[in-house]
Amino acid sequence: MSDVSTDLQVVAIGNALVDVIARADDPLAERLIAAHGLERGAAVMVDLERVEAVYADLPPAQEISGGSAANTVAGLASFGARTGFIARVRDDQLGKVFTHDLRSLGVHFEVPPATDGPATGRCLIVVTPDAQRTQCTYLGASSHLGPEAVDPDLVARAQVTYLEGYLWDQPDAKDAIRRATSVARAAGRRVAFTLSDPFCVDRHRTEFRQIVENDADVVFANELEICSLYEVDEFDDALDRVRRHCEIAALTRSELGSVVVGPDGIVEVPAAPVEQVVDTTGAGDQYAAGFLYGLTEGHDLETCGRLASLAAAEVISHLGARPEVSLAELARDMVA
Amino acid sequence: MSDVSTDLQVVAIGNALVDVIARADDPLAERLIAAHGLERGAAVMVDLERVEAVYADLPPAQEISGGSAANTVAGLASFGARTGFIARVRDDQLGKVFTHDLRSLGVHFEVPPATDGPATGRCLIVVTPDAQRTQCTYLGASSHLGPEAVDPDLVARAQVTYLEGYLWDQPDAKDAIRRATSVARAAGRRVAFTLSDPFCVDRHRTEFRQIVENDADVVFANELEICSLYEVDEFDDALDRVRRHCEIAALTRSELGSVVVGPDGIVEVPAAPVEQVVDTTGAGDQYAAGFLYGLTEGHDLETCGRLASLAAAEVISHLGARPEVSLAELARDMVA
Repeated sequence: MSDVSTDLQVVAIGNALVDVIARADDPLAERLIAAHGLERGAAVMVDLERVEAVYADLPPAQEISGGSAANTVAGLASFGARTGFIARVRDDQLGKVFTHDLRSLGVHFEVPPATDGPATGRCLIVVTPDAQRTQCTYLGASSHLGPEAVDPDLVARAQVTYLEGYLWDQPDAKDAIRRATSVARAAGRRVAFTLSDPFCVDRHRTEFRQIVENDADVVFANELEICSLYEVDEFDDALDRVRRHCEIAALTRSELGSVVVGPDGIVEVPAAPVEQVVDTTGAGDQYAAGFLYGLTEGHDLETCGRLASLAAAEVISHLGARPEVSLAELARDMVA
Repeated sequence: MSDVSTDLQVVAIGNALVDVIARADDPLAERLIAAHGLERGAAVMVDLERVEAVYADLPPAQEISGGSAANTVAGLASFGARTGFIARVRDDQLGKVFTHDLRSLGVHFEVPPATDGPATGRCLIVVTPDAQRTQCTYLGASSHLGPEAVDPDLVARAQVTYLEGYLWDQPDAKDAIRRATSVARAAGRRVAFTLSDPFCVDRHRTEFRQIVENDADVVFANELEICSLYEVDEFDDALDRVRRHCEIAALTRSELGSVVVGPDGIVEVPAAPVEQVVDTTGAGDQYAAGFLYGLTEGHDLETCGRLASLAAAEVISHLGARPEVSLAELARDMVA
């Protein structure tokens, strides 16, 4: 199948979520987090009853399409990349919002919406004055992403198939992931994988290690996630482990920048400057977008890392997890 | 009925709309406006088919609860005022979003959602780099606001009943308005009215003059609207006309500030400083919020005008038509 043309740069598989973002000052945020058993700074999965209970106590919010891998695809589209997305929404208002916001960027997203079952998934996000976000996700229709949603032709057309770790929270998605990775490998394409969240790594450590060892050519993780994956305390130990298995690992360290490990060694990339950090939601998603854009445009790993840092810096300077300006324009000087 | 206590400061009647806000640079915005026959800088009313056609061409958007009078009530709540709201949503996802965003501010909003008929109304807003917004409104469930939605006890409990001019675009709302104004007048309460939009004044000039002459104690308008109401070219001529009928008229002139006409003469109020104007949506709504807050707290007209300018300045400094910070805190020094 390796003669199929790769007219797409990245196809991503992930959860289809609409973010419901509310700002809360500290006393209110503390009360909300304590009352509903959330984890400050982390993402917890909840059922419908619990997401509605949290929502009832949430301050006024705004709705912005989200979902980790979907944010990455939106970032890629903002760079000008040709992309596709695989996820499940329902045929409801939030499903239409999610679909609109991807398609209007030119992303190929044609998985039919579910016509029954749970509503489109959503992620309630409380942003505190320190720019941290505490999340509570109701997967909804996303939890019914089966292998039938994976169009093998679409996967074979893309240079990279990108998987988010959050997918492992839904048992039904495993067959979809298997189908996508086997099509990608058979077509000679790369598979990229993000560990998503340290708590997510805790929940699925064994399976995540298998993916990293057997399937992923490119791995994205932050320091906590990669240390959790290997259950080590030192970042350098985790780095030594991951480079044995993967062609490329891009490891982020917040304001310390990132470390990119490739076949020819290690590149350290500084974080891009940010005037004011407003909301860290989406930093990792946009880092992956910049990196994969660089990679599929044939740039060296240092340029990939710098594009990644640039996209991450843009997204943390405002509320919401997708770029508000054209990343293609922001990056013009870097890739000229 | 004047012995009923006024435990509420303002009850507003308006359209229940969720704003769908997209930024567009000029070539794209021009194409969109031309292709769909919108009016740059103004609000047009469209049917379901047309709002869906515009949405299909809209860039990625964010959803934030809106509606002119609802924005005013949200601003009043942010000042700490006790408020109620009367409008109609449907029992759908956007209806829940709209309801949540008011109730979470402490606004009394208990009109039952429609269980059939059109979906919750929405307003597509294109914000151009000059911070102007071009709007296209689908009233949806809002167009079925009948007199049964008006709880006479609620109206009688409020010092001020506030009506938005946009209500006149829906024939069904007229009985609701009549019921509310007659209850308010019988209870000895004030009626406040905003002309909403110059095109709206064009559509309903005769009825708007009747409201101003017979029902409204307080009138809000910008320069274009008040000149259109009286079909005069000079602001001073319009001002002379409106003061014959109304106890108070608050007339806004964008960066020139506002002119408040009261029983004791005219007060000129400067605009509050704004670092960067991002989106002018909601400037008039928040001006009315600040003014009505001051009025119902017993402040003089100059203080009312300054509170109004403060709230307007906050809202135009960011995307969306409702305050992002506590107006009570912003105003602390002014009303101490």
